[in-house]
Amino acid sequence: MYEHFTTSAAGSPGQLLGLLLDGTPRTRAELTAQTGLARSTVRARLDALLDLGLVSDRPGGVSTGGRPAGRFAFNARSRAVLAADLGATHATVAVTDLNGAVLARRPLRIAIADGPDAVITCLVETWRELLADVPAVPLAGVGIGLPGPVEHSSGRPNHPPIMPGWDGVDVPERVFAEFGVPVLVDNEVNLMALGEHARSFPDADHMIVVKVATGIGSGFISNGVLHRGAVGAAGDLGHVLAPHGGDTPCHCGNTGCLEAVAGGPAIAAALRAKGIEAHSNADVVALVRSGNLEASHAVRQAGRDIGDVLAGCVSMFNPSLIVIGGALAAAGEMLLAGVRESIYRRSLPLATGNLRIVPSQAGEDAGVLGAAVMVVQHALSPVVVDSQLP
Amino acid sequence: MYEHFTTSAAGSPGQLLGLLLDGTPRTRAELTAQTGLARSTVRARLDALLDLGLVSDRPGGVSTGGRPAGRFAFNARSRAVLAADLGATHATVAVTDLNGAVLARRPLRIAIADGPDAVITCLVETWRELLADVPAVPLAGVGIGLPGPVEHSSGRPNHPPIMPGWDGVDVPERVFAEFGVPVLVDNEVNLMALGEHARSFPDADHMIVVKVATGIGSGFISNGVLHRGAVGAAGDLGHVLAPHGGDTPCHCGNTGCLEAVAGGPAIAAALRAKGIEAHSNADVVALVRSGNLEASHAVRQAGRDIGDVLAGCVSMFNPSLIVIGGALAAAGEMLLAGVRESIYRRSLPLATGNLRIVPSQAGEDAGVLGAAVMVVQHALSPVVVDSQLP
Repeated sequence: MYEHFTTSAAGSPGQLLGLLLDGTPRTRAELTAQTGLARSTVRARLDALLDLGLVSDRPGGVSTGGRPAGRFAFNARSRAVLAADLGATHATVAVTDLNGAVLARRPLRIAIADGPDAVITCLVETWRELLADVPAVPLAGVGIGLPGPVEHSSGRPNHPPIMPGWDGVDVPERVFAEFGVPVLVDNEVNLMALGEHARSFPDADHMIVVKVATGIGSGFISNGVLHRGAVGAAGDLGHVLAPHGGDTPCHCGNTGCLEAVAGGPAIAAALRAKGIEAHSNADVVALVRSGNLEASHAVRQAGRDIGDVLAGCVSMFNPSLIVIGGALAAAGEMLLAGVRESIYRRSLPLATGNLRIVPSQAGEDAGVLGAAVMVVQHALSPVVVDSQLP
Repeated sequence: MYEHFTTSAAGSPGQLLGLLLDGTPRTRAELTAQTGLARSTVRARLDALLDLGLVSDRPGGVSTGGRPAGRFAFNARSRAVLAADLGATHATVAVTDLNGAVLARRPLRIAIADGPDAVITCLVETWRELLADVPAVPLAGVGIGLPGPVEHSSGRPNHPPIMPGWDGVDVPERVFAEFGVPVLVDNEVNLMALGEHARSFPDADHMIVVKVATGIGSGFISNGVLHRGAVGAAGDLGHVLAPHGGDTPCHCGNTGCLEAVAGGPAIAAALRAKGIEAHSNADVVALVRSGNLEASHAVRQAGRDIGDVLAGCVSMFNPSLIVIGGALAAAGEMLLAGVRESIYRRSLPLATGNLRIVPSQAGEDAGVLGAAVMVVQHALSPVVVDSQLP
C-alpha cells in the first residue's frame, strides 16, 4: 500500500545532483537551504560530484570578471551517450551529450533480419567512427531501440515478429563487451515517445506517440513516465481490431488488424489495385506530395482507420496529446486530417476538449533522442551516481 | 527531461515515516543506517513523529518483558479516515484506519440525482453516526468516490452524465466545512482500482479494473500508479465502440458503445424481449444464479462484447492483470468466461502469456477501500506530514 514512498538514501550526492538537473546554477548556500542538509555535507557531496565531472563550478565556462559567483551547475558535456534507433531496413546511429543534444549522427541502411551478429557489429563500428569526431569524454552508456517487443529489464527482444534470430538475445551483454558501460534496450516506438516527451512536450503527462510506417505502433506516457507494460509489449496499436478491418488477413495470424488495413504496404497495395505504381512508403509519400488524388484519398482513409482505433484509446487514456510520426507522417496533413476526423467523431466531448493531435516534432531523430534520454535517466539516477563514488 | 528526479526535502520527518510505512519496526540505529542521516537528526525526526502519534515506540503494544527493544513503528490506528463510495442509487459509507482497515461501515440507498446538497448532507450525518462507534482519534481526511468524471486536483465533477446538479461543484469545500480536514474526490472506478491494487494486488504494476453494472467503466494502474488522464476522464470503457455494437443507440449520443450492448439495462432488455421478467442488475444476477439458460447466455455474450473491447486494451496496455467487478460480476463465471474467450481469441500470445483475468477480490468494499487509500497516500506523504510540525 505504501511502496511509492520508498526512497533512496536521502541527501546523497546523487540526490544533490537531482536538484541541479533542472539546469539552474546554485550556490552552496542555496543548495544547503533547498536540501536541508548540513553545510559540511553539501560541501562533501559537491566535491564528489566535481570529482566525477558531473557538476561544474564554472557554469557556461564564462567568467564574470568580478568576485567568483561560487555557483555550481550540471555539466552536460562531461559524458557522451551512444544511441541507435533501428528499424527493419534503416538505422540512425548517434553520439549525444547528457542533455540529449546530438554531437554526431549517421543514417545507415541495415537489414534487421541479418540477425544480431551482423547488425551489432555494424553499430559498434559506426559508433567508433563517430566517437573519433567528437571531444573525448567518458561514456555514460549505450541506448538502443529495436523494432519489436523488448523485455526492458534484461534488454532481450521478446518474440519479435520481424527480427529473425534476435529472440531472447542478450543485446546488452554483447554491446557491453565492446564499450564496458551500461547498455539499455527498448522498443523503438517507446523510445520515440520518450524522445518526443523529453524534447518537445515535457509538460504532457499523458500522451500517445503513434508511428505509422510499414508497421503501426505506439508509445504511451502515463503520469510523465513511459508505460512499457508487463512484458514490454504495450503500445501494440497495429494489431487492435480496426472497426472497418473486416476479414483482411494480417501477418500476425488474426484478421482485421489496423496494420493490415492502414500500414504502408496496405496503402501501396490499394493504390496498385487502382493501377498506380506504389511499392514503398516513400512511393506513397511522393505520390501524395505530387498531388495524386488517389494517393491522398488512400492516406486520408488510413488516417481515419487509425483514428477509429485511437478513439478507443482516447476514451481509455484521456491523453492531452497525440503525436503522429513515422515514414507515412511525411505525407503531411492528409494523414492527420483523417486521424482527427475519426477521433472527434467518435470520442466524448470531455476527452477531446483539450486534446491536441500534432505531427512529430523530433522527426527522424525522435528514436535516437529517446535512446539517449533512456541512458541519461539511468546514468544520472541517484543510485547509479552514488555507486560511482570511491 | 529530468523532472522525475525532483524530490522533497531529504531527511525530513515525512521521509523518515516513508521508510516505516512498510510496517517493519526499526531501531534508531537501523533508521540512522538506512537514511544516512546523523543520529541527532534521526532522534529529532522521531520525536516529531512520536508527538504526532504517527509513530509508536511500542509496536503492537506488547512488552517482551525484557530490555526495551527501542523499536519504532508506524501507528495505523493514530488517525481515522472517512470514506464513501457513491453510485447512482447506492452508497457505501465507512470509517477506516491508516491501513485501510474498515472500522465501521454502512450501506445506504441514495439518489445521486437528488444533487449535492441532499447527498452530502446524508453522507455527513452517516459519518458522524459511524464515528460515534469507533475509538476517538484525529481525522486524517475524507475520501469520496463519485459515479462520473472528476477533476482530481480540484475534486470537482467534470460534466458527469448521470449526476444532475453536480457539474463543477466544489465537493471538497462543502465537506471540509463539516470536518476541517483534507477532502479528496475521484471517480468511483478509479478508487476501485486503487483499492484492488493496494489490498489484493500490490505487485501488479500494470492492471485494469473493470466495473460491469448499469454502466461499464474501468480504472487503470500504470507503473504502480493510478492513471487518471488529462481531465480525469480515463477508463471510459463503456463508450468505446464495440465490434458488434452496430447501430445500437447509446445515451451518450453515439451508437454502438460497449455500454449500450453489454451494460445491465441492455442485458435486461434483451431478456425481456424474450419474454423473461428482468428489470434490474439484481434480476439478471438472480436469473443466472437460478440456472436460467437465456440469462446465462445473455451474460456470457455481454462478457464476450466486453472482452472484444478489452482485447484492444490488452494490446495497448499489456497489463498483467484484469479484475472484473461491479454488480453483474456477481453473476460469476459466466461473465468472466465470455471476457476470457474474446481476449484470448483476439490478443497476441505475447500479451496474454502471463495475463490473469480474475473476479474482484475486495468486492463491494473496493470503492471505500480505494477512497481510504487515496486519503492515506495524501495524508502520509512527506510534504503533508512535514507541514503538520510546529
